[in-house]
Amino acid sequence: MFGIGSDDSNPSFECSAPCNNLGFLQKNNNLEEKISSFKERSSKDLLDNSDRDSRFRRTETDFSNLFARGNWPSYVHYGKYRPINQNDKHCVGILIMFVLLNLKTKNENIDMLQFFTLDLLPAKNGEEPTMQFLLEVVDILTNYVRKTFDRSTKVLDFHHPHQLLEGMEGFNLELSDQPESLEQILVDCRDTLKYGVRTGHPRFFNQLSTGLDIIGLAGEWLTSTANTNMFTYEIAPVFVLMEQLTLKKMREIIGWPDGEGDGIFSPGGAISNMYSVMTARYKFFPEVKTKGMTAAPRLVLFTSEHSHYSIKKASAALGFGTENLILLSTDERTHIHSDGLCLQGCVPMFVNATAGSTVYGAFDPIHEIADICEKYNMWLHVDGAWGGGLLMSRKHRHKLRGVERANSVTWNPHKMMGVPLQCSAILVRERGVLSGCNSMCAGYLFQPDKQYDVSYDTGDKAIQCGRHVDIFKFWLMWKAKGTIGFEHHIDKCLDLSHYLYTKIRDREGYQMVFEGEPQHTNVCFWYLPPGIRDMPDGQERRDRLHKVAPKIKALMMESGTTMVGYQPQGDKVNFFRMVISNPAATRSDIDFLTDEIERLGHDL
Amino acid sequence: MFGIGSDDSNPSFECSAPCNNLGFLQKNNNLEEKISSFKERSSKDLLDNSDRDSRFRRTETDFSNLFARGNWPSYVHYGKYRPINQNDKHCVGILIMFVLLNLKTKNENIDMLQFFTLDLLPAKNGEEPTMQFLLEVVDILTNYVRKTFDRSTKVLDFHHPHQLLEGMEGFNLELSDQPESLEQILVDCRDTLKYGVRTGHPRFFNQLSTGLDIIGLAGEWLTSTANTNMFTYEIAPVFVLMEQLTLKKMREIIGWPDGEGDGIFSPGGAISNMYSVMTARYKFFPEVKTKGMTAAPRLVLFTSEHSHYSIKKASAALGFGTENLILLSTDERTHIHSDGLCLQGCVPMFVNATAGSTVYGAFDPIHEIADICEKYNMWLHVDGAWGGGLLMSRKHRHKLRGVERANSVTWNPHKMMGVPLQCSAILVRERGVLSGCNSMCAGYLFQPDKQYDVSYDTGDKAIQCGRHVDIFKFWLMWKAKGTIGFEHHIDKCLDLSHYLYTKIRDREGYQMVFEGEPQHTNVCFWYLPPGIRDMPDGQERRDRLHKVAPKIKALMMESGTTMVGYQPQGDKVNFFRMVISNPAATRSDIDFLTDEIERLGHDL
Repeated sequence: MFGIGSDDSNPSFECSAPCNNLGFLQKNNNLEEKISSFKERSSKDLLDNSDRDSRFRRTETDFSNLFARGNWPSYVHYGKYRPINQNDKHCVGILIMFVLLNLKTKNENIDMLQFFTLDLLPAKNGEEPTMQFLLEVVDILTNYVRKTFDRSTKVLDFHHPHQLLEGMEGFNLELSDQPESLEQILVDCRDTLKYGVRTGHPRFFNQLSTGLDIIGLAGEWLTSTANTNMFTYEIAPVFVLMEQLTLKKMREIIGWPDGEGDGIFSPGGAISNMYSVMTARYKFFPEVKTKGMTAAPRLVLFTSEHSHYSIKKASAALGFGTENLILLSTDERTHIHSDGLCLQGCVPMFVNATAGSTVYGAFDPIHEIADICEKYNMWLHVDGAWGGGLLMSRKHRHKLRGVERANSVTWNPHKMMGVPLQCSAILVRERGVLSGCNSMCAGYLFQPDKQYDVSYDTGDKAIQCGRHVDIFKFWLMWKAKGTIGFEHHIDKCLDLSHYLYTKIRDREGYQMVFEGEPQHTNVCFWYLPPGIRDMPDGQERRDRLHKVAPKIKALMMESGTTMVGYQPQGDKVNFFRMVISNPAATRSDIDFLTDEIERLGHDL
Repeated sequence: MFGIGSDDSNPSFECSAPCNNLGFLQKNNNLEEKISSFKERSSKDLLDNSDRDSRFRRTETDFSNLFARGNWPSYVHYGKYRPINQNDKHCVGILIMFVLLNLKTKNENIDMLQFFTLDLLPAKNGEEPTMQFLLEVVDILTNYVRKTFDRSTKVLDFHHPHQLLEGMEGFNLELSDQPESLEQILVDCRDTLKYGVRTGHPRFFNQLSTGLDIIGLAGEWLTSTANTNMFTYEIAPVFVLMEQLTLKKMREIIGWPDGEGDGIFSPGGAISNMYSVMTARYKFFPEVKTKGMTAAPRLVLFTSEHSHYSIKKASAALGFGTENLILLSTDERTHIHSDGLCLQGCVPMFVNATAGSTVYGAFDPIHEIADICEKYNMWLHVDGAWGGGLLMSRKHRHKLRGVERANSVTWNPHKMMGVPLQCSAILVRERGVLSGCNSMCAGYLFQPDKQYDVSYDTGDKAIQCGRHVDIFKFWLMWKAKGTIGFEHHIDKCLDLSHYLYTKIRDREGYQMVFEGEPQHTNVCFWYLPPGIRDMPDGQERRDRLHKVAPKIKALMMESGTTMVGYQPQGDKVNFFRMVISNPAATRSDIDFLTDEIERLGHDL
């Protein structure tokens, strides 16, 4: 089959490029009602390579005959024939001509068959369909962005797993052997967004990471276009330097002298916390790296009972064992009772102080804990995954007082600072210990004889090899907002949670989970439907109340109006945990939430 | 201060929305030479919310007065005054009117000040600037994409770290307190791409992950727009199901009956390999999770000496110690000598068989190793981070013969399958062991009383908490190419490496690093400049040859024409490792590479 058919299937002919009228039809199946809104480009423009004239406009493209097969000649159909029509005959003629030419010249370097493709890049002639396809995708995405901020749009269109698996209005999740047309790919993109959750919606309060920052989004689009890897300066020079400068800035904000120290962006707070435990172990017992945990005495880690479960995950994964992680009791706002840190019969090595606990948003007293750490020569880690952002606010940073005494800090800009997922940093006060802990000096990546200063290569600090570029969106947001912009964002979110707190603290039907003003944006409360309010305290009331939040949440999701989290905690039955990190949220959205809780929960 | 001033700085006035002619000037500082190529939208269109009419066209927007401050009223300048001009006076009038109205109504819920902002979403009136800004970014990105595939474009524009840090033509990497204008942000985006490396360029051969797949790129753009988290079905329903179906498909391709088993996408092959070691340990010694490594006997891991260094990183991190990782000797093509696996005086627990080694692209004999694993009851992991993609090819999958006997498999679609970074899967044959190993049952995320089937929540399988959505781009590519499209891509890359191998194996000035046809696309060779060719074998010749590849590489990077990796290995001095995973590469690019090596290396 003209030098192609290494497969056994039957090829047929398809040709678009020489018969361009086939490829760009006026009729546009699924897209036909759309109003064309981009000026048509002349084909002369298309051939112009200069920067200025190179702008593509979306035209009405028929994607139903286009496939994304890269260099795969598009006339080859695996396993099926397509009847040859009038236009094809013309192409077949040209094809035969080229095959004869090919036989004559025997020039293997000219893949003449590509002449016939009308396919995405890197295919020959792939530029126009590529640009049209990407602009079509961007149209879908910008439309999604626009609607995300529109309060008349639902937060989600809920379906159960089995419903989505069965296929919603033709949305087929199954993968197949044969390619789909680009038209179907665009439909798949629309459907994917349609059945997803709008985490940037002003009324989405379900997670610590909410919002859709436009600059951050642009940063992510660029990051994926650059499609590179953080492990060496060689292939990510700009991003590596941005990471270095940003980490230094963060260390300065923590309060380490001259921003000295080390750090790295990792895939989330749990991994950052894991880094802290590993780094501490290397600092005190470097022989564990080579000889394993049996070379060290019994090591004990401490954290508060309300700290994030990733500390427990780290103690299991790294070979400490969860039983050697001591959970310290806390008061209602999860302040560690720091006298609990003194323990007999083991080697206390590491204390995690939480700055902004996941459920209550509480801050452990870092100074008190630091005193004990100094006394017993323990590593102090501050898990500021959630609360670290408050360091950007002159008004709220006092809640992390003492953080400069930490040996390491986790800080997730993807939470309180509104950076798109993922963006988490582990910052270490002492230089060298992070590399010491993780370096394996792989020769094929970290050649010492490169022409540049290889101390900029970051890969040997990481437990990963390849590492996603998480820095650019954050750097770009910092540029666009300034430090002061982050401060404003954080102050505004805390103002909003204060508004919610003062609104419901004495309101009928609400009961706060802990006393006093929340320290972070976490506002934890029970909503009591009228039927429960007058019930005597006891098991029956608790049982009924336990079911209220899940029911309201289910109704919320089914109506798609808003989303907020709930959970039990210790002996406390299910309660709502409201968190605000979305800059799109306003007081009216807070009011909407309470109205909705009351509307949905009134008759429970 | 009209109810704003929680800061101490002096505000001045800036107003754009009511004086729209200010915001969208014809003159366009840095952009002024650009030829407007999008039809101007009428303001009537702008107000239309329907799907069909909502398309925005790029217009010539003046971004120099636009800032990305979200809900931060744009007339507030921190710390500096701006003189009030004619147009502002009009605005000031309206402002005063609204303030008076505000004082009168005392309605705190109406943030009337936002009326004056011309800022990105979520700001009021932010829709138009947001769309214009995003389209401007897309213009930068599509231009970059277009040029990436253009062979007349350089692969990179190399600069040393200190040069970039000093600021290239005004490209300032430093972060500051004050915001930058959107115009500057766009310049920053252009500069970031300008000084980066085009990993999708047809002549970029430097890493195992190369190429820029257009569908994958679109998938990443959508992923970042959706900006959600894989931990629960609740907030990532579609992505969670896509992951589940795709992992099942991968397990089917591995050959596990009915695609049964478990798995998860992780942040890279190193973490996937780490999962395999953790999971194996949990399978054989579940008590380690709670009691730590001291509860188990001395556990030993095995891998070939040429395996990826992440196995060593995992043994250090997880508390085994690198000395308890036994490196098995291999032949030149790094086949494990499987008789070396039998060891005395320890508990052998885990063997890693490499399917596609990083440098040589060699495949360990899985069946032989599986026999030994069965005999000694050891966990068999196959690290197919690089070679796993060959499973998609009927022609090449035999190289992983026996993979169905593995207990776990690492397989990185972001390498040989051309999926954008990051996309790595760890697949486990036995169901339940991955969750058992990692679950901590965090109440605030994985509530058992949700309204949907919570077995779809994935978070408790992971060592991460939040997890980036890596699945969508891969799923979308699979849809667009079909299984058969991946097969074609892989066959084509292996054909190209065969072309290179046959071209240079007997060519003057080249020497192959190992005998015989490469198994993967890795072609390892020395280039010998004429001055070295006739030197007698010995230390001097070795010393000189050792410096050849780094010098050629440095010259390549400085001229920016192409990039290929080099490294020493064992007692072998620096040699080139050519790898092909980029679907854009053709024979002419291979020819270009050898020409370039000869051109740059001739006089060394």
